[in-house]
Amino acid sequence: MYTIGLLADLAARTLVKGDWELSPRGIHFIVEASGCGEVITDVSKLQDILVEAVKQANAQVWSVSFNLFPPNGVSGVVVISESHLSVHTWQEENYMALDIYTCGDKSEPFKAVEYVLKKVDAKRSHITEISRGLDDDDHVFYHSFITWEEILKKNGSQN
Amino acid sequence: MYTIGLLADLAARTLVKGDWELSPRGIHFIVEASGCGEVITDVSKLQDILVEAVKQANAQVWSVSFNLFPPNGVSGVVVISESHLSVHTWQEENYMALDIYTCGDKSEPFKAVEYVLKKVDAKRSHITEISRGLDDDDHVFYHSFITWEEILKKNGSQN
Repeated sequence: MYTIGLLADLAARTLVKGDWELSPRGIHFIVEASGCGEVITDVSKLQDILVEAVKQANAQVWSVSFNLFPPNGVSGVVVISESHLSVHTWQEENYMALDIYTCGDKSEPFKAVEYVLKKVDAKRSHITEISRGLDDDDHVFYHSFITWEEILKKNGSQN
Repeated sequence: MYTIGLLADLAARTLVKGDWELSPRGIHFIVEASGCGEVITDVSKLQDILVEAVKQANAQVWSVSFNLFPPNGVSGVVVISESHLSVHTWQEENYMALDIYTCGDKSEPFKAVEYVLKKVDAKRSHITEISRGLDDDDHVFYHSFITWEEILKKNGSQN
């Protein structure tokens, strides 16, 4: 998965690197986080983490919506300028699905990814970075992607 | 991009089709829509389209947040059970970035994708379907994906 995802990204980048410049409208990180701590069951704390993550990404909060789903799952979304952050958690699996999607040259979305993974005490992550809204000066938009995995704690996935 | 994305997905599916069953926690469609109509500048109409799309997907709305970004961009998110729909639009490019992410066996997210693309009068779409939260019974979560393109109107991307 890692190798093929990487090849796909390299192929896409090669295709667009001619006389024109690669200029995505947004960067979108899709993250599966494993071995997360109890904090993923806490609506208030998760909301605080995502709002702080927006600052880490050098973006600004427009609106926030977090809900608890029985028994202990949390769904939350933070809308920022022309993009968003979201988190959906499964307590019984210690699993969190995280999306961090930002626009603009000044944003630093991967800082937000690292911040959230650290704060929820994730043990492993599987990440795809998607360059959204690429075009070859023809207004026909597409995306490219690269995928990788990270082991964040030595005790791996055994919790 | 199409071919390699497809190979990546087939490889991922092959890897997990052994003695265990592929069982994603969610299905997430990432869509770049080109040649969209004027409706992508209208906050109220876009919100109505996304809320109706939730019904098309056989899901239920938990919360809604839509905003206008100067001069004519719209950002909107609808939170549903353990997942979400989002739309971000660039009026001057006739471009819409759409995410439709649902959980559960009863949801039909691609119906929502088709509904939104039709309602915004998109001419072309580049779509990646991501199976979120796959694991091999070991609580180590990952995702797989497949990518394709659709020409929805004969006049292509020229508006």
